[in-house]
Amino acid sequence: MEVSNTVNSTYMKRAFALAGRGMGKTAPNPMVGAVLVKKGRIIGEGWHRYYGGLHAEAEAVQAALAAGLSPAGADLYCTLEPCCFDAPGKHQPPCTTLIIKNKIKRVYIANLDPNPRVSGKGITILEKAGITVVSGLCAEAGEELNRAFFTFHRAGRPFVHLKMAQTLDGRIAAPNGSARWISDEAARRMVHRLRSEYDAVLIGRGTALADDPELTVRLVKGRNPRRVILDSRLAIPETAKLFSLPDPEKTIIVHSHNANPRKAANLHSLGVELIPIISRQGAEAQRTQRGRKVGGGVLRNNAAIYLPSSSAFSASPRLCESSSQALPLQEVLAALGERGIQSILVEGGAGIFASFLREGLWDRLSIIIAPIMLGGGLNAVSGLGIDSMDQVLRFKNGVFRRIGSQIMFEARSL
Amino acid sequence: MEVSNTVNSTYMKRAFALAGRGMGKTAPNPMVGAVLVKKGRIIGEGWHRYYGGLHAEAEAVQAALAAGLSPAGADLYCTLEPCCFDAPGKHQPPCTTLIIKNKIKRVYIANLDPNPRVSGKGITILEKAGITVVSGLCAEAGEELNRAFFTFHRAGRPFVHLKMAQTLDGRIAAPNGSARWISDEAARRMVHRLRSEYDAVLIGRGTALADDPELTVRLVKGRNPRRVILDSRLAIPETAKLFSLPDPEKTIIVHSHNANPRKAANLHSLGVELIPIISRQGAEAQRTQRGRKVGGGVLRNNAAIYLPSSSAFSASPRLCESSSQALPLQEVLAALGERGIQSILVEGGAGIFASFLREGLWDRLSIIIAPIMLGGGLNAVSGLGIDSMDQVLRFKNGVFRRIGSQIMFEARSL
Repeated sequence: MEVSNTVNSTYMKRAFALAGRGMGKTAPNPMVGAVLVKKGRIIGEGWHRYYGGLHAEAEAVQAALAAGLSPAGADLYCTLEPCCFDAPGKHQPPCTTLIIKNKIKRVYIANLDPNPRVSGKGITILEKAGITVVSGLCAEAGEELNRAFFTFHRAGRPFVHLKMAQTLDGRIAAPNGSARWISDEAARRMVHRLRSEYDAVLIGRGTALADDPELTVRLVKGRNPRRVILDSRLAIPETAKLFSLPDPEKTIIVHSHNANPRKAANLHSLGVELIPIISRQGAEAQRTQRGRKVGGGVLRNNAAIYLPSSSAFSASPRLCESSSQALPLQEVLAALGERGIQSILVEGGAGIFASFLREGLWDRLSIIIAPIMLGGGLNAVSGLGIDSMDQVLRFKNGVFRRIGSQIMFEARSL
Repeated sequence: MEVSNTVNSTYMKRAFALAGRGMGKTAPNPMVGAVLVKKGRIIGEGWHRYYGGLHAEAEAVQAALAAGLSPAGADLYCTLEPCCFDAPGKHQPPCTTLIIKNKIKRVYIANLDPNPRVSGKGITILEKAGITVVSGLCAEAGEELNRAFFTFHRAGRPFVHLKMAQTLDGRIAAPNGSARWISDEAARRMVHRLRSEYDAVLIGRGTALADDPELTVRLVKGRNPRRVILDSRLAIPETAKLFSLPDPEKTIIVHSHNANPRKAANLHSLGVELIPIISRQGAEAQRTQRGRKVGGGVLRNNAAIYLPSSSAFSASPRLCESSSQALPLQEVLAALGERGIQSILVEGGAGIFASFLREGLWDRLSIIIAPIMLGGGLNAVSGLGIDSMDQVLRFKNGVFRRIGSQIMFEARSL
């Protein structure tokens, strides 16, 4: 059946607009929207409003019925493949059952469920019931909207978005460590909007010490994300602003398993979550004890956070982290994923950015470039391990767009 | 009289289009265009084609007469105030005389002559002869077109345009010194076009050693600019590509007065010009001998080239220059101005850029930012002397525009 059709796309776009209303509220579920169309008229629509709420398809059917309109013979536009299983605690029948029961004639779907255990099964059930199914309509829009959900299920790790705000000459802080404000309010508002859309914001210990940030959403309306600090040795002081927020349970400190236990206990008593990770040094020691050789390949699979050892800025707290205390990034991401974090906005600093880039553990990159210059200080990215121009990191699908007085470069990993 | 008039602007824009045809050929004279209009019809036009050639006004009048059309009663649109003096060797009467003699009725002028000895005099002469004069029509376009000429006459030094091509993270070379190519061919073509429009291209010794550039115009049609290398100790090898070009007389090496005389003689024998300058160290020594104290203010008036002393890249030849051998920038510019150089395109490296910026000795800045990342290597600008964000260098009138796969930031000094 013909997939690309202007009328069909219009209804699916409506479904996406509805789906987007669940932004930041549905995780770990995806955002889903549904539109029910009969004789060229929308008779019901709905969206997944929050985690645990009704599915979009059920909302659309209910809306039609409440208006006294029968879904029988209607077309259903649904941004994601309808579910086909009784999940524990879902308190609602599978959407496929609902669709069949209500005699819906055709179902248009943007994306298949990424879960390999159920992907395509919903479609098969509908088709066996004699319902026409068209999939792939506006699929790209769905990939974009639920990028975190898809990445989490396909790559088995949270979606990672690296966000930098730098000067023209690529600095994120002046020599004395000051960094406020490199970007203007328009750019900072955009960053706060991004924060409200991501499950977590992540920074390194150096940035936490230098900027003492709150990492909350203040310049726009929206819910606060969880806050993740990578701080292997638990050097962050208990007086940090992060510990005086009204929702301490949203703060997570990832540290080395051999960090000071008393400091860990003190921080724990502040109500924050601590995640101990076997640090690179520790992991290598363990392997060596087991008689296993630590080869070059291990680095790739056990991505560690490298921090520059430049002597020029050793006075800055941003760069005090020792690489011997580096946390293995993949294990950090796995631990965060286990806690339901599907998407992470990484906000610095230089060594953290370099580690994610170097290890290929990123999905999106946004660099806000302000029309200012420092001519010294902290570089935005340090330590990619590139020596020569022929190894340069190319962002082939990147685009530049204006934001306030700045330009923003945005790229996706391939 | 009413200045802003759409019809008038149209003719003046035509005059500017003609003037631009002299780009790169009229220095040290400005580019000038002229259009003669009678009863709503252009009866003659012309432009200053090359240094020593006919003035635009004379060309326009000649063209009208050659077509059998009388300039009497016509309007003359002229991008610059007509000249009013007999210059030695000009072989043509003052344009004011020509205009009066040919009974032109009205004269529209964009810019006044910047030379304080004659500025406004041409207008006075015309008005005294009963001719209506309207000045300031499209003045901004004229300021832009002849920016080098105006800067040279107003600021008493060449117009300085800093051009950088860098990665997203602000690097102009990889750690191993390689820099080809950071920008794509579209950007390099634009740079070659710029070269053809400037009187000289200037680089530092480090860039000369690391890149061994020709600094010629190859990717577009146009004449080669003069090539200026700042090389205080004459470290550039005689084997450099710059010395095997067919026009060695276009190469100028500015060096410290106490550089090795034998090396100077060798380079001189290659046909290049050498300009000895009393270097900062030498100048300070001289001042001290004269019993004058060297205070902070001297630095500002005796701008020197600072180069970063970062140990991280000490292996790179780009950074070998010792600041103790720095050349005073204002004296360098004065020496180049004396040689008829009204405009300079500065192409690197990091210390050179920082020196011009730090001393405020620049008029335009173009930063080409390529969608690539190095995460290490040489920063585009090093050593602005800024310590804190509140000292950050702001380019308030800057604009971003796309060029090939890159973005280019362009700013003017205030």
